Amino acid sequence: MYRPQIKVIDCTIRDGGLMNKSKFSLELVRNVYKAVCDAGADIVELGYRNSKKMFSVDEYGPWRFCDEENLLKVVDGIKSDTTKIAIMQDAHKAVAEDILPKEKSVVDVIRVATYVKDVDKAIKLANNATDKGYEATINIMSISVAIERELDEALQQIEEETKISACYSVDSFGALYSEDIDFYVDKFKKYLKNKEIGVHCHNHQQLAFANTIAGIIRGANYLDGTIYGLGRAAGNCPLELLMSFLKNPKFDIRPLLDVISKDILPLSKEICWGYAIPYMITGILNIHPEVAMTLLTKDDSSPEKRDFLKFYEKLTAEQTED
Amino acid sequence: MYRPQIKVIDCTIRDGGLMNKSKFSLELVRNVYKAVCDAGADIVELGYRNSKKMFSVDEYGPWRFCDEENLLKVVDGIKSDTTKIAIMQDAHKAVAEDILPKEKSVVDVIRVATYVKDVDKAIKLANNATDKGYEATINIMSISVAIERELDEALQQIEEETKISACYSVDSFGALYSEDIDFYVDKFKKYLKNKEIGVHCHNHQQLAFANTIAGIIRGANYLDGTIYGLGRAAGNCPLELLMSFLKNPKFDIRPLLDVISKDILPLSKEICWGYAIPYMITGILNIHPEVAMTLLTKDDSSPEKRDFLKFYEKLTAEQTED
Repeated sequence: MYRPQIKVIDCTIRDGGLMNKSKFSLELVRNVYKAVCDAGADIVELGYRNSKKMFSVDEYGPWRFCDEENLLKVVDGIKSDTTKIAIMQDAHKAVAEDILPKEKSVVDVIRVATYVKDVDKAIKLANNATDKGYEATINIMSISVAIERELDEALQQIEEETKISACYSVDSFGALYSEDIDFYVDKFKKYLKNKEIGVHCHNHQQLAFANTIAGIIRGANYLDGTIYGLGRAAGNCPLELLMSFLKNPKFDIRPLLDVISKDILPLSKEICWGYAIPYMITGILNIHPEVAMTLLTKDDSSPEKRDFLKFYEKLTAEQTED
Repeated sequence: MYRPQIKVIDCTIRDGGLMNKSKFSLELVRNVYKAVCDAGADIVELGYRNSKKMFSVDEYGPWRFCDEENLLKVVDGIKSDTTKIAIMQDAHKAVAEDILPKEKSVVDVIRVATYVKDVDKAIKLANNATDKGYEATINIMSISVAIERELDEALQQIEEETKISACYSVDSFGALYSEDIDFYVDKFKKYLKNKEIGVHCHNHQQLAFANTIAGIIRGANYLDGTIYGLGRAAGNCPLELLMSFLKNPKFDIRPLLDVISKDILPLSKEICWGYAIPYMITGILNIHPEVAMTLLTKDDSSPEKRDFLKFYEKLTAEQTED
């Protein structure tokens, strides 16, 4: 028994790119793209289309910009008719002019990521995308620290001023429990009468998959996952678990298992994602994982790197300062 | 807001001992014991008291037997008045005679682990324990493959024939989703009118913590966890996450963070627990993780070890054979 309205979105390259400045090899991106298409995902997000005025092309890899020519190299010879291609624009780090008219692009979906405070910028970028012929979504980041009154107003605006297909609750800090997911999905449904609800969960408390299930039970139909959970900090809802749970016969986890063996697992030598105590600490404290990422990228010889108690006490002292 | 009836049980040494034949050093067990007491756990399980006729003392470490003299070495100088000491007896691998009268033992709680089919043996051992003055629990293992009619009968027997404080649903295969936890907790409550319900979850699908929360919401009051999730295969519900969630001011995660840094994390060089694709595969297929543990203890040079697709296809082929 499955719900045919559910859309599964893979964001391995996009969210994983937050851990290596989007410096994946073309070969790896092609392998991930092929695996995700073969696995039957509805949408695959291949990176950001953020502005080259705000990100240095010397410092960041190609998947921070997703130039059309690079996307064409990814799909060359393996383009799927059933898996749509998405890119993400950050509301405060991207510009409308970087989006071509749909007929000149290989992209199908523009996902606009925003903080509540930047919702007007997000609406502008989402409308730019839908006006140019794309499907668009708005993904509200850091939802666990959103001021409720401002969130309500943002949702009302999104309902009235956009033609997006879905609006996401994004638990950037991995701070939410299932009861919180229930709360946000209910709230989103209250305001968004004509749009689907999405959930994008992080694994700081090992709840990304469970919270995605909680979202499904509550009525969310746009579900983000990444292969083996690759993504910022503790990572995301593992796509292999999500597809296995969903029971829709169109999904096949075997291509995912294969690409994990060959391409994703080897990345764990360079990129430190997945459950770790520093990420867990930022999750339970409901703060941005950046400080934990900084700790975990220290050299192994640094005693600080493994002094979790000191890290916790420093952060909690900061939180209780006047 | 917290529920004072909730008991948190640490089983780091007992469940973790399934990964190294219970060969932890005395120093490590003392450090874990102290951390768990300082963290405010209600019960700490220090190992098995299984029969030396069924386990070789040459092959297995002291925490497979938990002789009183070894337990006294653990608690010497650090004995807590608020954290009870538990040991586990396997219904099919332990004998009643190994349990001294309570007044001659440092142990407070005997936990009897059983398959549904061995429930008569379990009841005998549980009654032996309560007759000798201990608190006892019965922990029904491999619940995800229990025949429902047999489980119902076992629960009825446990209700009528024992004086245990709690009966556990144990998801040995990490196969359950939250809706399954709801089902089992409801069933246990239906039969067990005078006993608490416990949940012991495994993390093969990254759901151990989430399923423990699901159990709490449904009314389970005996909650098992292990430090950093150390335990068989993908491990258990991480105690640091559980205590952080529970909000009871008697819990303090700081001693756990410290012992993770100093004692638990270094173990990951020898013991391979935590989410990994082979464990995930046995979880979604609802089979014992032994086959995955065998794969993951192969030498790193073995190509088989990382060929997850082959592993999956072999297991699914076995499941569909006539």
